[in-house]
Amino acid sequence: MARIYNFNAGPAVLPVEVLEEAQADLVDYKGSGMSVMEMSHRGKEYEAIHEEATANLKTLLGLDDTFSVLFLQGGASLQFAMIPMNFLGAGQVADYVNSGNWGASAIKQARLIGTVAIAADCEKDVPTRVPGVEELKLTPGAAYLHLTSNETISGAQWKRFPVCDTPLVADMSSDILSRPFDAGAFSLIYAGAQKNLGPSGVTVVAIRMD
Amino acid sequence: MARIYNFNAGPAVLPVEVLEEAQADLVDYKGSGMSVMEMSHRGKEYEAIHEEATANLKTLLGLDDTFSVLFLQGGASLQFAMIPMNFLGAGQVADYVNSGNWGASAIKQARLIGTVAIAADCEKDVPTRVPGVEELKLTPGAAYLHLTSNETISGAQWKRFPVCDTPLVADMSSDILSRPFDAGAFSLIYAGAQKNLGPSGVTVVAIRMD
Repeated sequence: MARIYNFNAGPAVLPVEVLEEAQADLVDYKGSGMSVMEMSHRGKEYEAIHEEATANLKTLLGLDDTFSVLFLQGGASLQFAMIPMNFLGAGQVADYVNSGNWGASAIKQARLIGTVAIAADCEKDVPTRVPGVEELKLTPGAAYLHLTSNETISGAQWKRFPVCDTPLVADMSSDILSRPFDAGAFSLIYAGAQKNLGPSGVTVVAIRMD
Repeated sequence: MARIYNFNAGPAVLPVEVLEEAQADLVDYKGSGMSVMEMSHRGKEYEAIHEEATANLKTLLGLDDTFSVLFLQGGASLQFAMIPMNFLGAGQVADYVNSGNWGASAIKQARLIGTVAIAADCEKDVPTRVPGVEELKLTPGAAYLHLTSNETISGAQWKRFPVCDTPLVADMSSDILSRPFDAGAFSLIYAGAQKNLGPSGVTVVAIRMD
């Protein structure tokens, strides 16, 4: 079979051996007599799939049990709203880095929910870039600092992440697991699965429990 | 192969021939060299799948081109919020029928967004029931009237739907396509796919364009 490698925006290539395992199990999942699509989400077979995926991802990210991993819907874009809805309370400020299209989209949604301060704005810079860590204007006591690890449209990637007291939140949709990094330094990492992790339709959130 | 038929809450049985077709195409979709999970959501192969599914559902529901069909995420439960967010504006009232657990859940979300009037309340009635059409207290000029076609937990199903000037909105997750009905009399029908339409992970919204 001649494989086509899709490098377009949106869903990306999956390993053939993963597709073949999913295919083999699709009608009768490991002798259960059911497709995974027919199972109770509370059943032991599905629970085992969920636990294994969670454990594998934590291993790859080097995260311990102070973190939870969630598999959600709505894409990374829904997280643009869910994060401020959950963590940007009345009277609080969240710091956001605007480094391009995705950072700007996150800021637009957060402003519908609460008060946003721009820690740095490189959206229109030519050549495209992310700010240096020393450029960031941080709000004392900010609810969190949000950044986009890799801006795919303009093309700019953080090489070194900020170290600060503010809880760090990052959209890592396009480069998660593409390089080693200290995931434990973040309070919340989110990523649409379709670029680097799995099929489209799932968004991964790794969140520090405290 | 001994098939297990899952009748629990949550995902339900799918036709084996549908699963087998999905399985056959999973690694190499109709000779495209890609899995459907690897394709661009803007590509012609995926667009054709989308158009066929939309057209098939419109045919089954007897809907014409005054309706659009959307395939969304977040379950029918996210529609509990999305519907008032989109259609319950400031200064407006939405009428809701509380006929059980699902109706009450829809009301709870709508009250976070805007003003809700209870057109009928049978939630605690024993034996469980839905209200008669003549019992409904409708608000003149209401943004919409929301009902749950079948309350699965308590067990109560509408046999005859209201006919009124208020735009009708229905959660039909558990009985859509299980019986003929006049879908064109509704302004918005939504249903989690996992009971009667397809695998979990997709929510169908059929909406009148005006």
